[in-house]
Amino acid sequence: MELIVVKIGGAAGVDAEAVCADISAITRTGLGVIVVHGTSAAADALAARVGLEVQHLVSPSGHVSRYTNPEMLPIYVAAAAGQANKDLVSRLQRLGCNAIGLSGMDGRLLLAERKAALRVVENGRQRVVRDDYSGRLVSANGRLLRMLLDFGYVPVVAPLALGTGGEPLNVDGDRVAALLAGTLGASDLVILSNVPGLLASYPDEHTLVRHVPWDMLGVAELMAHGRMKKKLLAAREAWSAGVQRVILADARVPQPLQAALAGEGTVFGDTAPLPQEHRLYGSLVAADASSV
Amino acid sequence: MELIVVKIGGAAGVDAEAVCADISAITRTGLGVIVVHGTSAAADALAARVGLEVQHLVSPSGHVSRYTNPEMLPIYVAAAAGQANKDLVSRLQRLGCNAIGLSGMDGRLLLAERKAALRVVENGRQRVVRDDYSGRLVSANGRLLRMLLDFGYVPVVAPLALGTGGEPLNVDGDRVAALLAGTLGASDLVILSNVPGLLASYPDEHTLVRHVPWDMLGVAELMAHGRMKKKLLAAREAWSAGVQRVILADARVPQPLQAALAGEGTVFGDTAPLPQEHRLYGSLVAADASSV
Repeated sequence: MELIVVKIGGAAGVDAEAVCADISAITRTGLGVIVVHGTSAAADALAARVGLEVQHLVSPSGHVSRYTNPEMLPIYVAAAAGQANKDLVSRLQRLGCNAIGLSGMDGRLLLAERKAALRVVENGRQRVVRDDYSGRLVSANGRLLRMLLDFGYVPVVAPLALGTGGEPLNVDGDRVAALLAGTLGASDLVILSNVPGLLASYPDEHTLVRHVPWDMLGVAELMAHGRMKKKLLAAREAWSAGVQRVILADARVPQPLQAALAGEGTVFGDTAPLPQEHRLYGSLVAADASSV
Repeated sequence: MELIVVKIGGAAGVDAEAVCADISAITRTGLGVIVVHGTSAAADALAARVGLEVQHLVSPSGHVSRYTNPEMLPIYVAAAAGQANKDLVSRLQRLGCNAIGLSGMDGRLLLAERKAALRVVENGRQRVVRDDYSGRLVSANGRLLRMLLDFGYVPVVAPLALGTGGEPLNVDGDRVAALLAGTLGASDLVILSNVPGLLASYPDEHTLVRHVPWDMLGVAELMAHGRMKKKLLAAREAWSAGVQRVILADARVPQPLQAALAGEGTVFGDTAPLPQEHRLYGSLVAADASSV
């Protein structure tokens, strides 16, 4: 079965309903879709409600991650595997799409190693954080996802992995999506978030980079700021694992997934503009355009 | 595959670790186990942290249920599908048992109809509640659970169903367990909670009813108080669906599941004391007894 992996950003502004409508339409054409979601807005909101301060850690290489200490961990689990995951499952089911929500803990879908000592930069100085429950992804259970796809389900994966001691670990959703795309041999990895793609001159949205051939990835990495660095890391990981095309695109527009598959956003890959080989995307976009 | 359904109560006092150790031991003998869990303690704790008051509704027939209004629903989802579910998955995985946590929303595992107008008794007077998100169970997706069992997974099910409009609905865990036991043709339904079983003279634990033949179920129902009424309703539903034996037993004792399967608690069924036909329970109990 030909399949794609779609990451839906967890930040505010993402139009989850529009993305789910596109997923529902595309799965009806017979293409397999695996959904991975973020959790940031849901986790921030729940943390605020229980009175926990949200903090972020910055690695020496500039990667930003959520600080998930033992107090924050159960809130993160509740927001990721509970609220954010079931919100998407509910939307997809309402659209007639048989979504099945899983976290990476379930059936050993995502195994990770806890980063027991994490070097971070704070006010220009390095220190080591030892009580963070974030994980380095080790492997994915592709067999479980294949089985679910074969039976007609659309897996929706929360960014929560199983640690070697059985503990829940916060993992980055973009990198989860890259790992799953590589493990399952997906043709495309689409990362939808609240930015239009990679910007040559951040934050000017008019400087959107439309296409990055794989041999130019290193140059693109130099342009990335903040959270975009993780998305480029995910793109690199997907590419290394054999994924042909990675698309970073905007989740705040109408038909965000169809637009991304038609070439909107930043397309990483050696074929650009996007080939029309996936006729189902072309026909879907055409059908929708004619009905507007 | 021969299988049993085990409901683990969600109230405080339940020894989840001991139940999980038993589940892990029993699945290693080749018996299929489906786990259903409650959520009360986790939902109460999270509601308290976000400042929501927990309320209960009492039906005219005396059944007690959690009031899940639109404010409480996301907290219930977070506690049920997030915290309580992943806590059990984590424990089972740590014990080497390949648990896969699901809510009833996932893959249409549990379909329910929202009780749009709920008649309740308050201070001796009846009134109608219209903003409760609880559901009347309609059907279960046995095919999904069979597939997971066939592939060696231990399903762990949160008491959350998918409404006809795609919305999450709070459903009673005991009745979920009964529905799944009936749908899958389980031989036994074991309901573990923080009471020793049915008490003839509540709350005197010395008046434990050891055995209830099915034709005496009506008499037993007259003895039930409070939450025990739902457990007897679940027992009746399981029996109607062809489940041979329902065991209500204590989850606060060592080896709670093995003790229940060996005849502790209240056994509903037409064979008592419990036959030793399930040799694996006998051998497990014997092995554990000799090692003490």
